[in-house]
Amino acid sequence: MVEIDIPEETIRRLMIYLRYLTRLLEAGQENISSGDLANILGINSHQIRKDLSYFGEFGTRGVGYETKKLVREIRFIFKLNKKWEVALVGVGNIGSALLRYPGFKKQGMEISLAFDRNSQIIGKEISGVAIENVCNLEKRVKENGIMLGIVAVPPPSAQEVAEALVSGGVTGILNFAPTLLDLPEKIKIAQVDIAVELGRLIYYVQGKT
Amino acid sequence: MVEIDIPEETIRRLMIYLRYLTRLLEAGQENISSGDLANILGINSHQIRKDLSYFGEFGTRGVGYETKKLVREIRFIFKLNKKWEVALVGVGNIGSALLRYPGFKKQGMEISLAFDRNSQIIGKEISGVAIENVCNLEKRVKENGIMLGIVAVPPPSAQEVAEALVSGGVTGILNFAPTLLDLPEKIKIAQVDIAVELGRLIYYVQGKT
Repeated sequence: MVEIDIPEETIRRLMIYLRYLTRLLEAGQENISSGDLANILGINSHQIRKDLSYFGEFGTRGVGYETKKLVREIRFIFKLNKKWEVALVGVGNIGSALLRYPGFKKQGMEISLAFDRNSQIIGKEISGVAIENVCNLEKRVKENGIMLGIVAVPPPSAQEVAEALVSGGVTGILNFAPTLLDLPEKIKIAQVDIAVELGRLIYYVQGKT
Repeated sequence: MVEIDIPEETIRRLMIYLRYLTRLLEAGQENISSGDLANILGINSHQIRKDLSYFGEFGTRGVGYETKKLVREIRFIFKLNKKWEVALVGVGNIGSALLRYPGFKKQGMEISLAFDRNSQIIGKEISGVAIENVCNLEKRVKENGIMLGIVAVPPPSAQEVAEALVSGGVTGILNFAPTLLDLPEKIKIAQVDIAVELGRLIYYVQGKT
């Protein structure tokens, strides 16, 4: 466990570095300079060096970073060497897209439980995961010792299912519902709001008209 | 057009304020203090006041912000009073979820064109939008003067469809494919990467084990 207080934006960027470096590693690239990483990711190289410096000295002047070592270190920092099981609530369009998404496993994450309230899909399987009745959410999450949840239900149900996840022991929630969850402060929430992202783009695009 | 250089994170937060304030307005709440806004959104009130100060003086000491006025001003800043048409490429799980999502219209955004390469779904309609052949992407985007695109295709096709969007005149792209797009610098890209968001949560959750 890292005890220093690392800025949230650094944490986000570290995950972005990891995603990209994993791909480099698969392609057999052994080294990368912070300058190249900066160009590709569109983040300035000073920022990259600063982000990585929180965790010690990774780079070598003139050679850059060893891809393999850097991937290993970031995975260690994020404890991604163990498998992280995730409970998904809501198997609609977004939820089933997430179940079918192959990119989680590579990063040590796996949706291992999925819940819905629609009796037409309860019992069905997507990507090897059987969809369970949302009534059993709290119990099943507890039984499986799951700490991460994804909320992909319509806004009116989001707060209720998030509370059930927390009662079951979840401490981190990824929320796709366009509504703010009101949960104890110790629960970490990440919000994915497509309208916010589009709105940001509009701000930048409008200047070009 | 705002000429001052506003930090990217302020732009993101302004959209978050707008999303929440719109809901308050619908619920008939006429005023909100920066302190209440801070508590609800989990952003400190100093930050909120600073973000809003880029655009002049909105608040009144002791009364807080007028919801209606603030919504109007933020919508003006983001030019959300006009309708922003968006072209969607890829009508798989994520793409069809976006087409069915009712939250865009409220913010002045609308997916008005949708493309796929699968002949089984070309010609079908989702939420009133007919799915067109991706071969016509560039031409149709140009005809309609569309400046915003959403890429929701598998990673191997992402770069190609993004380039077609840009050739058609798009200058802002929301990318759901877990791959980095290599586009001219003037093109603004927003990346939605679920594995990055989950990874961030894991970082915070692990400290609690």
